Amino acid sequence: MARHMITFLPHDRKIEVDDGEILIRAAMETGVHINASCGGEGVCGKCRVIIEQGQVDDGLSERLSPEDIAKGYRLACLAKVRSDLVVRVPVESDVDSAVLNLQASPRHTARIRTFDLNQLKEQGLFIPPVEKKYLELPEPTAQDNIADVSRLLHHLKIEHNEHRLVMDLNVMRTLPDLLRQGNFKVTATIVRPVREDGKNKIVQIESGDTTDQNLAVAMDIGTTTIYGEVLDLNSGEVLSNYGDFNAQISYGEDVISRIVFSEKTNGLATLQTKVIETVNKVLGQIIKKAGIGRDEITTITLAGNSTMTQLLLGITPQYLRRAPYVPASNFYPPFAAADVGIDLAAHAIALVYPGVASYVGGDIVAGVMGSGMYRSDKLTLFMDIGTNAEIVIGNKDWMVCTAASAGPAFEGGGVTFGMRAARGAIEDFSIDLMTLEPMIMTIGNVRPKGICGSGLITIVARLFEAGVIDNRGKFNQALGLDRIRQREGVWEYVLVWQDATQIDRDISITEPDIDNLIRAKGAMYSAAQTLLEEVGLTIGDIEEVILAGGFGSYIDLEKAMTIGLLPEVDPNHVTYLGNSSLLGAKMSSFTNRLRRDVGEVVRMMTNFELAETPSYMDHYMGALFIPHTDLGAFPRLAARLELLKGVNR
Amino acid sequence: MARHMITFLPHDRKIEVDDGEILIRAAMETGVHINASCGGEGVCGKCRVIIEQGQVDDGLSERLSPEDIAKGYRLACLAKVRSDLVVRVPVESDVDSAVLNLQASPRHTARIRTFDLNQLKEQGLFIPPVEKKYLELPEPTAQDNIADVSRLLHHLKIEHNEHRLVMDLNVMRTLPDLLRQGNFKVTATIVRPVREDGKNKIVQIESGDTTDQNLAVAMDIGTTTIYGEVLDLNSGEVLSNYGDFNAQISYGEDVISRIVFSEKTNGLATLQTKVIETVNKVLGQIIKKAGIGRDEITTITLAGNSTMTQLLLGITPQYLRRAPYVPASNFYPPFAAADVGIDLAAHAIALVYPGVASYVGGDIVAGVMGSGMYRSDKLTLFMDIGTNAEIVIGNKDWMVCTAASAGPAFEGGGVTFGMRAARGAIEDFSIDLMTLEPMIMTIGNVRPKGICGSGLITIVARLFEAGVIDNRGKFNQALGLDRIRQREGVWEYVLVWQDATQIDRDISITEPDIDNLIRAKGAMYSAAQTLLEEVGLTIGDIEEVILAGGFGSYIDLEKAMTIGLLPEVDPNHVTYLGNSSLLGAKMSSFTNRLRRDVGEVVRMMTNFELAETPSYMDHYMGALFIPHTDLGAFPRLAARLELLKGVNR
Repeated sequence: MARHMITFLPHDRKIEVDDGEILIRAAMETGVHINASCGGEGVCGKCRVIIEQGQVDDGLSERLSPEDIAKGYRLACLAKVRSDLVVRVPVESDVDSAVLNLQASPRHTARIRTFDLNQLKEQGLFIPPVEKKYLELPEPTAQDNIADVSRLLHHLKIEHNEHRLVMDLNVMRTLPDLLRQGNFKVTATIVRPVREDGKNKIVQIESGDTTDQNLAVAMDIGTTTIYGEVLDLNSGEVLSNYGDFNAQISYGEDVISRIVFSEKTNGLATLQTKVIETVNKVLGQIIKKAGIGRDEITTITLAGNSTMTQLLLGITPQYLRRAPYVPASNFYPPFAAADVGIDLAAHAIALVYPGVASYVGGDIVAGVMGSGMYRSDKLTLFMDIGTNAEIVIGNKDWMVCTAASAGPAFEGGGVTFGMRAARGAIEDFSIDLMTLEPMIMTIGNVRPKGICGSGLITIVARLFEAGVIDNRGKFNQALGLDRIRQREGVWEYVLVWQDATQIDRDISITEPDIDNLIRAKGAMYSAAQTLLEEVGLTIGDIEEVILAGGFGSYIDLEKAMTIGLLPEVDPNHVTYLGNSSLLGAKMSSFTNRLRRDVGEVVRMMTNFELAETPSYMDHYMGALFIPHTDLGAFPRLAARLELLKGVNR
Repeated sequence: MARHMITFLPHDRKIEVDDGEILIRAAMETGVHINASCGGEGVCGKCRVIIEQGQVDDGLSERLSPEDIAKGYRLACLAKVRSDLVVRVPVESDVDSAVLNLQASPRHTARIRTFDLNQLKEQGLFIPPVEKKYLELPEPTAQDNIADVSRLLHHLKIEHNEHRLVMDLNVMRTLPDLLRQGNFKVTATIVRPVREDGKNKIVQIESGDTTDQNLAVAMDIGTTTIYGEVLDLNSGEVLSNYGDFNAQISYGEDVISRIVFSEKTNGLATLQTKVIETVNKVLGQIIKKAGIGRDEITTITLAGNSTMTQLLLGITPQYLRRAPYVPASNFYPPFAAADVGIDLAAHAIALVYPGVASYVGGDIVAGVMGSGMYRSDKLTLFMDIGTNAEIVIGNKDWMVCTAASAGPAFEGGGVTFGMRAARGAIEDFSIDLMTLEPMIMTIGNVRPKGICGSGLITIVARLFEAGVIDNRGKFNQALGLDRIRQREGVWEYVLVWQDATQIDRDISITEPDIDNLIRAKGAMYSAAQTLLEEVGLTIGDIEEVILAGGFGSYIDLEKAMTIGLLPEVDPNHVTYLGNSSLLGAKMSSFTNRLRRDVGEVVRMMTNFELAETPSYMDHYMGALFIPHTDLGAFPRLAARLELLKGVNR
């Protein structure tokens, strides 16, 4: 796809974008503020810019006069980039270039760390735990009539240097006929042990040479969604993927309500049935999409939080939610997938990711595996941001972890106009430092309906920088803005007036909304501080940050640091893991070495219960500010705030 | 019970018997011949003896005159011993004492080797593979909230020095609730690995202290009969036992017909269902008799021949009966008993005795285990006598084995008046060296119906010694006896005239009968010879003989040596194992060390296929004589035959 260079004047900021990009989005990306509140439908008509050089499509509106159009005016929210451009943004005449530069930092989201098969291969880690061996056995004779199993094992030992082999009854049952049907030419599927002193398990025998088919499934058992992938263990490729809502969702949205339901009569059985139902639905889809036979799948690796894991296995989760919060087990043995109702062949083995504690489950361990932080020299902060926030800190020598209850603010809960990240959600925001007029971007470039988690972070960060709110999240009523107002005793800032929304109300952000966000980010930040203190370090020692969780890829990192959600590190040292649970499940499907590491990782991860760590409350109180009582930990922000003081509004 | 000493005159043979013993049986036991053919019902009236001293009950008959009775005559087949006795047997006047002494060797059956718990304990071998540990775990606290499984394993490690522990999902499922119901005081049942490098498996958790209940089952899966025992692993006691016919029997009497049936549609499934049905029936009975709970049984050890084993496990046995006779496997992994339909709790583990070859199965390995021959310095011959005869030769350094088809003669098949060992079967026999008149003993002391296997051996041995048949089993027609006659072209010796039988015919033994026996014993003897030759030894090197199989305890050893079924060793060096399969299953239930030995035993046992061993046919031809072409291997018999030549008939 063609790329075009856009230069915004008078800011003189440049950005390269894809052909067809909406102009206002390019501005937002590079930190150029253009007043705009309708999300991109041309309704408010505020986002007027002059195309000085180059070509755009669209951008016309009845809100522009023929003269304006002749002068090159276009609405930035409608104009599509078709060539290199020079675009002038009309600004107040007395704005000097210093203010223009202060106006906004470019949008910067975390680099997404995806599954890198080549790296795995280069590191010599691509050693699939399931191997197929094609065997041409000598046919039995009167002089050589050892048992079929002995013949097979002997051949594997002598010709393939395979040792410590075991075979279950179900495979033995198939062996005599298969050997003779295939003239003693068969393929044996061998599952490697997780621990080196374990056994190599022959899980399937097939007639003829089927070594070109070696398939596994990785699956993330999320509280909300279950994702699966079919993996080709020979090539390392993902053949198909699919995700669907966890059918347990009708019994409660979060883990606590699921646990409560599980305690009712037949509750546990019902929830197990439901999750298996979804697992089988996802399996059916990925098998269909990959165009493979169900029986060709030999292993399924599952990762989920402790509640999801125990429900899947039919183990009561009730003690997870009751002090002192004890999981049934950290490790689960491999088992026949069919034993819990997973619709795979009898020989398919299920591997369940181990967890560390009631609220640091297999999904987090999978994330840590996927992140590679346990093999890094650098002090790394792993954050899974959500209602239940999990935090892991450490490196190749040690790791500590904990879980904090952040509340639902990041997912749009407890926020007046909060919503999930969906079409119409305000996902980005800028504010003119002089006029304090907003610039609004929505998912799908449609008129706004509400605010999603990443949008909320950016809004609060920009309002703080612009001095609209103070470091306690309270509005500066002295500004005398009509957008700042009190309704029913609650102070708020109007983001979008009613006529530019999809709803018949003004969309605003209130002080209680901001307070909820501060408490959510404060819980996470102080959890990290507390963990660090336990190991004699401080937040300043963090070198790398790894984000996981549903909306980590959307967070504008600089803004997240501004509000004190993330420690202030070089944004280039922040990566986002995507579906970290699925990533971990996939990685350990592909490499036996990493499967072994999982056990080590769990043993390395020392869990702290925040409720049992007295200093947590102190840290939490300190974190209930923007960014924090300790501004010294945010030197870039401190310098910027210093400059912003000079802006004469 | 009171014991009485009986002295038979003029033989001057003495024997001590229980109060109430039938007098004629005492005579037979000590080798004193008394003409008798009605089996003990007083019908033939021939067994007249004079009670010279002491007291008998009964023994009166209308066949005795009042004068006879007054003189002390009684019928030996009716008289019951009530005190020490001196009994005179009327004999021909010209019989000298040398002939009397030659007349018969005392009956000598093999010493029965039973399960000797004390010996096992003395040898330090009583180390049950299942142990229960009572644990008082610390209750979890906020400071110590590790997972339930970790808590249990940690405690076992620290307080009980238990390592390499594993636990299946089904146990994990029960753990959280059980721990809390029992205030964290529980009993863990641990199954030890067969191999030392294996895992210790926690198979059950119970609330409170249940260490006094530690139960296992041993079971012999016979083609005809299934025997089971409940074992107390704490004390080593057998709490109950029961045997029942294998319900497969309606699908064929022997293994070959079962295999043939298994090849029909649903045949395998039907036979598996049937054998499991009987296993469950036997289980039900022994559980009931022992007064225990079904769930208290943690292991079941099963031993059977290769066909029975494969049918039980649902593995097609069809290749067992087709050249080159390949079993599916020698070793079978431990599995959940419930997985094949055995009606035990989910945690109960089934252990199946390994086999060596298609016709040297787990029952024989169990017998070898039970016999201890693999730990002996002495060169031992193990013989399981039956239609399919299995032979093992060796000692602690090496073992060789084979199976020979002996035909059904030992079980009464292919013998004109052959029958199983049941009431009315002729089980013992003597012949007057002068008159060649027989003495007949039947099972149950009733009139004869037929001849059982052990009876057949004795009859042929005595007929040979008395010169009634020659070393090819042909009748000496020159004797001019009316008992030797030809009917429908077949020569025979009448054992019992019609009026003394339960059937309306004379009971006889024919030349074809004798021929069948010679071929059966020849097959076994020559199999042993062939095996010995393979290892550079001869039959004369045998030091110990161990008999197994249904009728081993009834065989009169000296007679079996006379016909050349057994090599001529000191009868005191012959032992009988009883149900050797059950014995082995029981022993390895009680001692983990012996379970480990089983694998070694199987690897030590080198199987030879007789059909592939050219010298077998030569040995077989030589063994088709009484006792053998090589009389030098039977020095005691040769000396006796020399003396018998002097008897002037």
